[in-house]
Amino acid sequence: MTKEKKTKPSKELPLGFVDRQEKELLTRDFIISNIKEVMIRFGFQYLETPSFEYTESIGKFLPDKDRPDQGVFSFKDEKKWLSLRYDLTAPLARYVAKNYLEITKPFKRYQLGSVWRNEKPGPGRFREFLQFDADFVGTKNLQADAELCILISEILEKCGLSKNDYIVKISSRKFSEDLFKEIKVNSSDQALIILRALDKIDRLGWEEVKKLLGKGRKDKSGDFTKGADLDSKQIEAIEQKINDTESKTDDVAEIIKIFEDYDFKNYKFDPTVIRGLEYYTGPIFEVNLNFEVKNQKGKTVQFGSIGGGGRYDNLVSNFGNLDCPATGISIGLDRLVYALMQKKEFNINSTKPIVICVFDKKNLKNYVSILKQLRASNISAEIYPGEGNLKKQMQYANKLGSPAVILYGDNEIKSGKATLRGLVSGNETSVEIENLSNEIKKIL
Amino acid sequence: MTKEKKTKPSKELPLGFVDRQEKELLTRDFIISNIKEVMIRFGFQYLETPSFEYTESIGKFLPDKDRPDQGVFSFKDEKKWLSLRYDLTAPLARYVAKNYLEITKPFKRYQLGSVWRNEKPGPGRFREFLQFDADFVGTKNLQADAELCILISEILEKCGLSKNDYIVKISSRKFSEDLFKEIKVNSSDQALIILRALDKIDRLGWEEVKKLLGKGRKDKSGDFTKGADLDSKQIEAIEQKINDTESKTDDVAEIIKIFEDYDFKNYKFDPTVIRGLEYYTGPIFEVNLNFEVKNQKGKTVQFGSIGGGGRYDNLVSNFGNLDCPATGISIGLDRLVYALMQKKEFNINSTKPIVICVFDKKNLKNYVSILKQLRASNISAEIYPGEGNLKKQMQYANKLGSPAVILYGDNEIKSGKATLRGLVSGNETSVEIENLSNEIKKIL
Repeated sequence: MTKEKKTKPSKELPLGFVDRQEKELLTRDFIISNIKEVMIRFGFQYLETPSFEYTESIGKFLPDKDRPDQGVFSFKDEKKWLSLRYDLTAPLARYVAKNYLEITKPFKRYQLGSVWRNEKPGPGRFREFLQFDADFVGTKNLQADAELCILISEILEKCGLSKNDYIVKISSRKFSEDLFKEIKVNSSDQALIILRALDKIDRLGWEEVKKLLGKGRKDKSGDFTKGADLDSKQIEAIEQKINDTESKTDDVAEIIKIFEDYDFKNYKFDPTVIRGLEYYTGPIFEVNLNFEVKNQKGKTVQFGSIGGGGRYDNLVSNFGNLDCPATGISIGLDRLVYALMQKKEFNINSTKPIVICVFDKKNLKNYVSILKQLRASNISAEIYPGEGNLKKQMQYANKLGSPAVILYGDNEIKSGKATLRGLVSGNETSVEIENLSNEIKKIL
Repeated sequence: MTKEKKTKPSKELPLGFVDRQEKELLTRDFIISNIKEVMIRFGFQYLETPSFEYTESIGKFLPDKDRPDQGVFSFKDEKKWLSLRYDLTAPLARYVAKNYLEITKPFKRYQLGSVWRNEKPGPGRFREFLQFDADFVGTKNLQADAELCILISEILEKCGLSKNDYIVKISSRKFSEDLFKEIKVNSSDQALIILRALDKIDRLGWEEVKKLLGKGRKDKSGDFTKGADLDSKQIEAIEQKINDTESKTDDVAEIIKIFEDYDFKNYKFDPTVIRGLEYYTGPIFEVNLNFEVKNQKGKTVQFGSIGGGGRYDNLVSNFGNLDCPATGISIGLDRLVYALMQKKEFNINSTKPIVICVFDKKNLKNYVSILKQLRASNISAEIYPGEGNLKKQMQYANKLGSPAVILYGDNEIKSGKATLRGLVSGNETSVEIENLSNEIKKIL
């Protein structure tokens, strides 16, 4: 058959994308099963929107970007542009607008799914990540906002975190609105630049953020970000206001009252909580981990935020004249997995199969009888699936991390006993075939 | 704040994408938990590759298309093209090539994940769907191929299907190779057109496939597909061969021998099993459901294949001179979910919360005490999250499908008893607060 001359394709992944291994995936499954359990108890519905939306349906709400086609992966379809979702909130708003009449309101839904950002990748900065979102749609009742903070807290504690390990910070967009009045900022563009700058205090520190509030800032790579062009008096006024933790806005005060009724204490009012998204209209929250985590270079760091959210009373109304207030929270699951895997108390191990060695293919039926017994007893097991001799089979089992191998040669088949060799202890025992499962359970 | 004049964005989804509701998602979760359980017992590792790969890494193996950039969603990155994966096999080959030295071989891994096809959407033809794949990499041992068929069977039976509900069909690429020799087809391009035509027998029937083997075929929409240009004698020879279920190839005969050792009977040798992918080199399998399913128009149809696979001994070697035989199987989970939801015996119901009505916000603390008791007893519950009066609250609970509401007004608070109103029965009972969980469990 004729073939074109070929060049070898790349074995590498594009930057910002990663392969994920079993331990990480099992940790993620553990978190997800806790999330689902809490979501059912809290009375949320399970919904899934697809990866793609029309760009116009989600484009206007893109975080941190000035143009809808920046920061997302977009394709030209036959007539219109499609984009991969960059969060789960914009698709929810589209879903609610589309099904507005049928939906029972308030509508409480949760979703788990990947989101994509077509951004400059960097260390720890991915272009695909898994999010969990919970939202209340169709209510102004601040009890909803309070419950979002409480349910995140329940999920984290079910995952094994203690009250010292995390805190829910709350503030309000009303707070920044007051601030803009005070410092006489009228342009929504300028206001947005200020919000995005303040959102970076945790990451960059106040001195760098000051540059972003003023003329602008050059980052380590030499890239220059234009600032909000505020004067020093305005910047001073901001500094004062974000350090004042006494003057709460009405909505924050009401949420704190609800927290008291719920006896929920693991929160903190923090005016430096800003959130980079334009669409928030009221209370905003951020969930922070307090324990120390090592970054990928092994350096101990304050891990910071694993998610947050807030009230967005006007997002659904963008699709039509629908009065549909809403509030929601998102958690970045990959980040939570990463942090949880470093907790000493937390240990998820992957299961490796018992390997039944193959002496002679003619005896496959005998090996199968052991295999079926073990699997029926819920023991992970396999007949050696390769083609090597006994030495290679032992090397395979050792490299795989198998807890034990079973040796069942001609003489053993005659005697009805197999040899069970533990690969940690090195011990060998001769075991009646029908007792194998029980003996193996002692090893595991 | 100044705003540009806006046009309303679309509320619709692009064609080929769907929103998925709770019942479907719960059914999917049920299948996935069975898959994971079987995969652990069978000794497979859990792996996840990302959604994106370099186009060149997966492009050559695209099913059913002549050019690598057709049929996939691709983006130009800074330097190279990226594509969303169209299956989970091509990314596995890339993963194995990248990590060839560290991987313990034979390498058994499974993956669950969405794949995307940028194809003309039609009824029941989606552009995003969820796949489950299991593969053995690094072995020529046909026991691997046999185990793939057996594990799929275990998964389907764990999901509640009986042996009459499904069948695993097997054949071999060696069979079509013999066929091409017999009818003197030497060009790989022509061979591929023949394979793709034969793969459509289930869907189109033999008479239509004959057109695809000859000059070509016009479909209902008027689109013309060029045929393989065979003459009538060649087509006759093909017809004879695919109806001959006696002449098995060596590899099929060996797999059937292994099935006997495993006492696995739910298979059938079927020469019409072809599989549309170019990369198969040996045994191929297809998993078919036998029970009747209604399509989206309510018409009863033979559902047919939910997946399949086969041996692809040369795929990894495309990345370098790596001798790495492999075999794998895929299941289309959305299709399996769709079929399973129609089985009478199968019933998954979503949980709706008990609604605690709000008479007066001042009494929130009292409602919370009930809420906490119910949730602690693992009962789905909520305090009415909206702002309506009692009538609206009852309408909400009814529309939601809540099993019961709890009425706890001023007098009831004084008496320490709440009224529990079942929303199916309409019965009202007065219950001591501390007995609420027990009484509710009787209703559920």
